[in-house]
Amino acid sequence: MAQNKRALVLSAHSADFVWRAGGAIALHQKKGYEVTIVCLSYGERGESAKLWKQDGCTLDHVKTERRKEAEAAAKALNAHDIQFFDLGDYPLEIDREAKFRLVDVIRKVQPAFLMSHSHYDPYNTDHSYATKVLMECRMIAQAWGHNPGQKVLGAPQLYLFEPHQTEQMGWKPDVFLDITEVWDNKRAAIECMAGQEHLWDYYTNLAQNRGNHFRRNSGGQAGGRNARYAEGFQSVYPRTVDEL
Amino acid sequence: MAQNKRALVLSAHSADFVWRAGGAIALHQKKGYEVTIVCLSYGERGESAKLWKQDGCTLDHVKTERRKEAEAAAKALNAHDIQFFDLGDYPLEIDREAKFRLVDVIRKVQPAFLMSHSHYDPYNTDHSYATKVLMECRMIAQAWGHNPGQKVLGAPQLYLFEPHQTEQMGWKPDVFLDITEVWDNKRAAIECMAGQEHLWDYYTNLAQNRGNHFRRNSGGQAGGRNARYAEGFQSVYPRTVDEL
Amino acid sequence: MAQNKRALVLSAHSADFVWRAGGAIALHQKKGYEVTIVCLSYGERGESAKLWKQDGCTLDHVKTERRKEAEAAAKALNAHDIQFFDLGDYPLEIDREAKFRLVDVIRKVQPAFLMSHSHYDPYNTDHSYATKVLMECRMIAQAWGHNPGQKVLGAPQLYLFEPHQTEQMGWKPDVFLDITEVWDNKRAAIECMAGQEHLWDYYTNLAQNRGNHFRRNSGGQAGGRNARYAEGFQSVYPRTVDEL
Amino acid sequence: MAQNKRALVLSAHSADFVWRAGGAIALHQKKGYEVTIVCLSYGERGESAKLWKQDGCTLDHVKTERRKEAEAAAKALNAHDIQFFDLGDYPLEIDREAKFRLVDVIRKVQPAFLMSHSHYDPYNTDHSYATKVLMECRMIAQAWGHNPGQKVLGAPQLYLFEPHQTEQMGWKPDVFLDITEVWDNKRAAIECMAGQEHLWDYYTNLAQNRGNHFRRNSGGQAGGRNARYAEGFQSVYPRTVDEL
Amino acid sequence: MAQNKRALVLSAHSADFVWRAGGAIALHQKKGYEVTIVCLSYGERGESAKLWKQDGCTLDHVKTERRKEAEAAAKALNAHDIQFFDLGDYPLEIDREAKFRLVDVIRKVQPAFLMSHSHYDPYNTDHSYATKVLMECRMIAQAWGHNPGQKVLGAPQLYLFEPHQTEQMGWKPDVFLDITEVWDNKRAAIECMAGQEHLWDYYTNLAQNRGNHFRRNSGGQAGGRNARYAEGFQSVYPRTVDEL
Amino acid sequence: MAQNKRALVLSAHSADFVWRAGGAIALHQKKGYEVTIVCLSYGERGESAKLWKQDGCTLDHVKTERRKEAEAAAKALNAHDIQFFDLGDYPLEIDREAKFRLVDVIRKVQPAFLMSHSHYDPYNTDHSYATKVLMECRMIAQAWGHNPGQKVLGAPQLYLFEPHQTEQMGWKPDVFLDITEVWDNKRAAIECMAGQEHLWDYYTNLAQNRGNHFRRNSGGQAGGRNARYAEGFQSVYPRTVDEL
Repeated sequence: MAQNKRALVLSAHSADFVWRAGGAIALHQKKGYEVTIVCLSYGERGESAKLWKQDGCTLDHVKTERRKEAEAAAKALNAHDIQFFDLGDYPLEIDREAKFRLVDVIRKVQPAFLMSHSHYDPYNTDHSYATKVLMECRMIAQAWGHNPGQKVLGAPQLYLFEPHQTEQMGWKPDVFLDITEVWDNKRAAIECMAGQEHLWDYYTNLAQNRGNHFRRNSGGQAGGRNARYAEGFQSVYPRTVDEL
Repeated sequence: MAQNKRALVLSAHSADFVWRAGGAIALHQKKGYEVTIVCLSYGERGESAKLWKQDGCTLDHVKTERRKEAEAAAKALNAHDIQFFDLGDYPLEIDREAKFRLVDVIRKVQPAFLMSHSHYDPYNTDHSYATKVLMECRMIAQAWGHNPGQKVLGAPQLYLFEPHQTEQMGWKPDVFLDITEVWDNKRAAIECMAGQEHLWDYYTNLAQNRGNHFRRNSGGQAGGRNARYAEGFQSVYPRTVDEL
Repeated sequence: MAQNKRALVLSAHSADFVWRAGGAIALHQKKGYEVTIVCLSYGERGESAKLWKQDGCTLDHVKTERRKEAEAAAKALNAHDIQFFDLGDYPLEIDREAKFRLVDVIRKVQPAFLMSHSHYDPYNTDHSYATKVLMECRMIAQAWGHNPGQKVLGAPQLYLFEPHQTEQMGWKPDVFLDITEVWDNKRAAIECMAGQEHLWDYYTNLAQNRGNHFRRNSGGQAGGRNARYAEGFQSVYPRTVDEL
Repeated sequence: MAQNKRALVLSAHSADFVWRAGGAIALHQKKGYEVTIVCLSYGERGESAKLWKQDGCTLDHVKTERRKEAEAAAKALNAHDIQFFDLGDYPLEIDREAKFRLVDVIRKVQPAFLMSHSHYDPYNTDHSYATKVLMECRMIAQAWGHNPGQKVLGAPQLYLFEPHQTEQMGWKPDVFLDITEVWDNKRAAIECMAGQEHLWDYYTNLAQNRGNHFRRNSGGQAGGRNARYAEGFQSVYPRTVDEL
Repeated sequence: MAQNKRALVLSAHSADFVWRAGGAIALHQKKGYEVTIVCLSYGERGESAKLWKQDGCTLDHVKTERRKEAEAAAKALNAHDIQFFDLGDYPLEIDREAKFRLVDVIRKVQPAFLMSHSHYDPYNTDHSYATKVLMECRMIAQAWGHNPGQKVLGAPQLYLFEPHQTEQMGWKPDVFLDITEVWDNKRAAIECMAGQEHLWDYYTNLAQNRGNHFRRNSGGQAGGRNARYAEGFQSVYPRTVDEL
Repeated sequence: MAQNKRALVLSAHSADFVWRAGGAIALHQKKGYEVTIVCLSYGERGESAKLWKQDGCTLDHVKTERRKEAEAAAKALNAHDIQFFDLGDYPLEIDREAKFRLVDVIRKVQPAFLMSHSHYDPYNTDHSYATKVLMECRMIAQAWGHNPGQKVLGAPQLYLFEPHQTEQMGWKPDVFLDITEVWDNKRAAIECMAGQEHLWDYYTNLAQNRGNHFRRNSGGQAGGRNARYAEGFQSVYPRTVDEL
């Protein structure tokens, strides 16, 4: 349905895109999309406990390791591009310059859809902050007076991907995507995250259970599709359609 | 996308389907769907003030007039079928027998999607009650033990069509449908409602403004579709898709 | 501002109107309104523990005592009228006949405003049920086809008066009424409730604290009115005004 | 903390208690509680598709099979008691007599806590209806005038157990219970549900993932308890404590 | 009802006040109020697409044109005063100095009520940000220790005026203002917005439909006022009254 | 239940901890906890009207007086420690350095639970801002890469204490704490607040009424504890338990 087959995934920390949108990335690449991933930070301070428990660990070392993992994961998903903004984490801080850098990427990609974190996250304020800024940057990218002459942005959907404890975040999925055919890619990407091995099975369980939800909502025992793995997303904006 | 090109629209009173879903009905008929409308009542007591102000008006007379109007409107929309359950209004009361009658229709139609009123309506409790019962009947229609041997229902979406004062109802549209090409049908159906002429322009204004929302959400000044008339709907269940 | 200076207060049990709307009743009577109170039950089963702890207590005895208390309280508030529907409590059950009886009262009173319980009450389902039915009856009273020839109802505001544990009910007051000048009446009415003496100070504390809220919202330390006692209400419908 | 070590679990259909509260039942039994399960229906019409697909299946046959499964599951969980009200399903209908029967059970058990379904379930209106009625019955059981002389009910907490698609139900867990030590019982109970084998792994995945949530909320990588399986619950009423 | 007949309208971009509060401004001026409008930016980057599409367009040129339009509109509404803070847009940024400048205006005006944007706007983060800052400035203006000796602010109501897609913003009007008698002023002000001609009819449609809502909520077919044009507002704070 | 018997209370202004958490502080001290209070500001500009009305008042004088009051109150509550960050108020501004200072305190205290203001406060943006930052600092304190080598934080509960107008803040208490045995301490602390004498009775009334809520939720007339004074709190995170 989309004319411009490109997408942009915003990841507050460098591993978020794997757990939460890995299937969507691999699937859309397979369908001919070009998916660009922007990692605002490496999650170097807050999401790398395993590395920090090693003797003599330094910030640079953590960043290097986390970047390697993320690049390997992006490759496993066949992502078109991955960019690292290196803005720091816990807390993530995004100034005007960084916002405009993100606007530049958005305008260059001209995505059919955007992806980011849930609106609210009481455990991790970096997550909801990233989405808040993305919504601001979407608006800037639409402004005809921002870098006049550049192609302005249309009105891409923003999908909020699945946070870790969904109910605590007030996150409610309104669309399930069947990722069965790219599950192997997602699992391979997940296994690139050496530092968070305790989450591998968690997100496999989750993908299976979301597969159950896909089946139920596509017809259940009276004709539902036999999806075995799925991902859920919450849409921020209304859709515009020709047919319901 | 739908395999079974049929739809079912539930109208608490006999004119509701016109204002709120007339465009969707005409458009889907044009696309080859068969749309069945079920009117639970004629709105004979509560939505026929103009008739009641006439001398010697009787309940039967009001019902007859309202039925004629609704049938004419359904015809203007090229609706496949319109059925009248004549359950009374203000208040509408739906007993077990009426529920099973509605289940029979649902199972017979096997709709790709259902339509009904908003979840909450502080002005008109018949509206929200109709939707509550429809959700119950959708569940019954899915039960393998209800009239065993009949084809059970899958998991059709339920779209809540637009109530009169949207914000008071907590209604939030998540999909806009471009009804420009069938607007003339909808306007013709609206004009069948002789008793509620004060609403003709109201719903024309509304369709135009929803057209603006369609344009904004489909790209705005950077490529949005030039829809001139639209209708909005709120989805109750998550969608299941192959591509975002 | 109101043209028809009449009001109708619906009380699920016979003491509710005292704690929750006693000030509003007395104040509006003083301003020339005629306030009618309808008690759907006596609260005879569920809100009369003190009486039931007496030996040989019977349902009739409880009803008689509760009615006496309510009548005395209504008198202390100078209420225009108090009616008892005697529909039973715990659970309260309101059939079609009782609804139509309530519609008759509403149409006869033609109130400028209605009052009832909060939309939700997890401790006392009679309360929210009474309001749900009142909203249904407001709709019926507006129907030109219900008892044609009777004067139909306009669009009176519905105020939800204060429940016992406000935050658990999702109740949010949007208007505070200064009841300082009729506080003595309300306290006198409260003291008619011999069976619930444990609540006298509770509701006095509450009225004082709502007075503080009145002062804050009317200007605070920079000119707020010195209200000493107040009641809060939540409006269901939007207001229509000539001036903000 | 509880003085009366008894609990009551309300199950709209005869298998609900297994998936949603099996761990809590087994664990509290192990801690010396007596847990009573009330199944309002057998789920004979709506949750027994596998049986209905067999030739010559009858309603009585389904009920018998479902009852056997539920009794076996209750036994696997060491539940103190299981009762079947046989009120029918899809739709479940609970009249005044059935309510009073439930009140009798509640008063007899005098539970420290109650358990039931989520407040809202757009897929299955039997579920939310069961909870609505339970809240009504809790209120009736507290009434001194209901069967005077019986011991009235105190104010037991009501825990809403986990529905199938949590986010669609607006369900938010505020307490996680570590069920690791009784997981084998729960799995054994789950395997009694021969007719719903497609859900065995689903609920195992879920219990593991809730275990992850338990670990995170009990301290995470800085000291969280190593729970491997957990269940989540949403509390309806506030807690009363001596120490936070 | 207000003693100090002055009001302050905050507009994130220089045209917002026209579409959203033009009627309220003109009406209150007519009733003897002095209404001050503060435009935080000219909307020069984000809301001036038509100008930017012209060759050789510069930021200064856009600002000049937008200011002229806004001044003409304010004049058409007979507004007492209009001030331009020129803080930039897309994104709007308000530092401490700008906040204190706004506090100065608030204290000088001593408004009976404030007006600003909705709490949430996923399309335009400047809007909700303006309101967030206004609430902060209202608090500062109430502080006795801020510029001691100045007259501190009381507790003026804050009305949130109507955003473009109300339901997406979670905006719910609780008051409708009849602007029929100043509609010609509002339409004239609207027509000053040469750059946004595509919105003229949109906001005319809207005013007519809000007129319908006014009529319904003021009595409907049983005595509602014949308002032909209206504006809706959402109140942030509770009202304090002598009579309901 | 807590292993580390320490707690941290965050107070935007120097008196907040008294009204809202004084009972919890005194009670937990009595139970052997060490409670640390952090006051982000003295409330010197916005909550010291009485002082500012005196001739020749200066900011330093107000700070000194407010500090004395807060220290006296902390002493009356037997608080373990009280710290003043002196960050200014109306508006409170917390930069990165101040955040890290707060993280240092959190890590040093290693609290079993945190306390702060409600999520939303339309009257006082300092309040909700303090809580927002506390949630960010809780996250930073959990980061293994923040000051590596320090003991990282576990997952302490965050309790939101009672704001002034609870319903306007969307605050909902889910736990009531019986503070009867330390009420005299709380009242003594309250009386240290010489500048806000108008609130002494307000918060006494409130504690009594929360005592009523405690009694109701702990069993009511069928065995509830006779708490005479209580405080309510809203939990942000789910609890993890061994027994319901």
